[in-house]
Amino acid sequence: MKKIFVSVGDLNGIGIEIALRSHKFARSLGEIAYSVSVENARNAARLLDLELPGDFNCVGSEPRAAIKAGQISAESGAASFASFKKAVELAVEQNGLRNGIQGGAIVTLPISKAAWALSGIVYKGHTDYLRGRFGGASGKAMGGVIMALGCNRRFAALFTDHIPLRDVAAAVKFDEFFEFLTRLAKLVSARPIGVLGLNPHAGDYGAIGDEELEIERAIAAANRALGENVFEGTIVPDAAWTPKFLARYKWIAAIYHDQALAPLKALFFDEAINVSLGLPIFRASVDHGTAFDIAYQGANPSRKSYENALLAAANGVYF
Amino acid sequence: MKKIFVSVGDLNGIGIEIALRSHKFARSLGEIAYSVSVENARNAARLLDLELPGDFNCVGSEPRAAIKAGQISAESGAASFASFKKAVELAVEQNGLRNGIQGGAIVTLPISKAAWALSGIVYKGHTDYLRGRFGGASGKAMGGVIMALGCNRRFAALFTDHIPLRDVAAAVKFDEFFEFLTRLAKLVSARPIGVLGLNPHAGDYGAIGDEELEIERAIAAANRALGENVFEGTIVPDAAWTPKFLARYKWIAAIYHDQALAPLKALFFDEAINVSLGLPIFRASVDHGTAFDIAYQGANPSRKSYENALLAAANGVYF
Repeated sequence: MKKIFVSVGDLNGIGIEIALRSHKFARSLGEIAYSVSVENARNAARLLDLELPGDFNCVGSEPRAAIKAGQISAESGAASFASFKKAVELAVEQNGLRNGIQGGAIVTLPISKAAWALSGIVYKGHTDYLRGRFGGASGKAMGGVIMALGCNRRFAALFTDHIPLRDVAAAVKFDEFFEFLTRLAKLVSARPIGVLGLNPHAGDYGAIGDEELEIERAIAAANRALGENVFEGTIVPDAAWTPKFLARYKWIAAIYHDQALAPLKALFFDEAINVSLGLPIFRASVDHGTAFDIAYQGANPSRKSYENALLAAANGVYF
Repeated sequence: MKKIFVSVGDLNGIGIEIALRSHKFARSLGEIAYSVSVENARNAARLLDLELPGDFNCVGSEPRAAIKAGQISAESGAASFASFKKAVELAVEQNGLRNGIQGGAIVTLPISKAAWALSGIVYKGHTDYLRGRFGGASGKAMGGVIMALGCNRRFAALFTDHIPLRDVAAAVKFDEFFEFLTRLAKLVSARPIGVLGLNPHAGDYGAIGDEELEIERAIAAANRALGENVFEGTIVPDAAWTPKFLARYKWIAAIYHDQALAPLKALFFDEAINVSLGLPIFRASVDHGTAFDIAYQGANPSRKSYENALLAAANGVYF
């Protein structure tokens, strides 16, 4: 069983509450360590009126952050960045960078991007940092790291993620898409993988855009290069989430963020997790935000996504 | 009760089978007439091994089309275009173009766009024809006709529909969006109406695109012009289909096709209908295609979408 390092996210949000409430479940999966200082964890537990369990193994060394429930603060931004970085390095150490994702694993709870920016952190978020930290080691196109989201019914790997919609069509180029597909085939064992078109009705034979031709050329070339018909498509984007296609494709490759995320959250809104493929460590994240509006108010937030992320980290399911 | 004219769609597809199988349901709603010739209807019924009911009121005068199950043919393209045009004109006549959508109604079953093209028809599909037929009479922006899709849980009105994704961002302009919103507010009585952003995370305060500023300016201006806070937004596109937002917004305005259609079909895949807002007649359509792959094979296709379209035509629900 892998050791899992949990980064607790922004202390002003719901992350630490989720970690505390799901601790028993987490322990049942194996060895868990929390990248948070004992002091910060204790302060949060007190505010939440929860007990800090005796085996809540705190391995963080981030600065003390006064908890201001639901607020964007530079202090909590700095603390959540330190917590995240430390979890990454602990997983890397355990892993020794030797054996792909066979070693350490991290599970990340939500940070506030605005709090990171406020405290002067140049990275936009978790994935951005991971691309900077590991980009050189693990690949080229799109920074090497592929963002994938989903649950046991359906996972989607994103070709582009946090870029403006106006830049998506121009990003669809044969070389980059071919590189993306061949990388994805090596990171995911599900077969076949469905590839979405870009345009409404996947272009309707060129009547509504023609980027599908580029995508289909890359699919054919990737399948040839892999010696196996891994990829099928292009699939009409708005049909890909109906029962017939859900049954055929556990994994799909999507061209842009909302093409995958909108239907995914519609169907599985609090179950989905986010994984970063192509890292030398395994990283899974919850697919929700800090929920500042309900933090420290006894809301008992859904823990399905977190527990699914722990399960993926412990058992490598879905791949 | 309104008289409903049903255009049976491409005779080589599943439209006529759906019409025949749901005839009793249709009759229970009021007066129904089918825009198909008796001869074509009889031929289809024979091939389907179904009885042509005695009260199956055929008012079509399209040319005879030899039925070639599941095939794209110029003959069936010409017939389906004639069937559709006649249904439109019968509804217009009944309506006298006097009283908005208080008069005639049509329900359309799926045509094959490829078959229309093959038979030399210049219109891309139903909505394109309706824009040409009524554009001058009913409005300016986007041809005057607003395409909306959904079911009783959620309806989405599309600002852009069948255009390439690469052209979507540039289409987001204050004047056009303001015009779209003010028209929509007059055609739909649901309040409030949620307006989606364009970019991932609705731009995340400008970090991932900034078209949301233009959209939000138009929302503010439309609400001022209407003297009422009809519109709210921008809403994060991939959150708009989760329970909280489904509960708040029965109607949303979407910026582009798959932003609405992918989650809509994910949640309500065979229930959704398509309505054309801003016409002098009421028009509802099924939200599926000709299904050539299962036509005339005893597949007994889902009739939920068709029956929902009939209900909308009969009772004007959802608005």
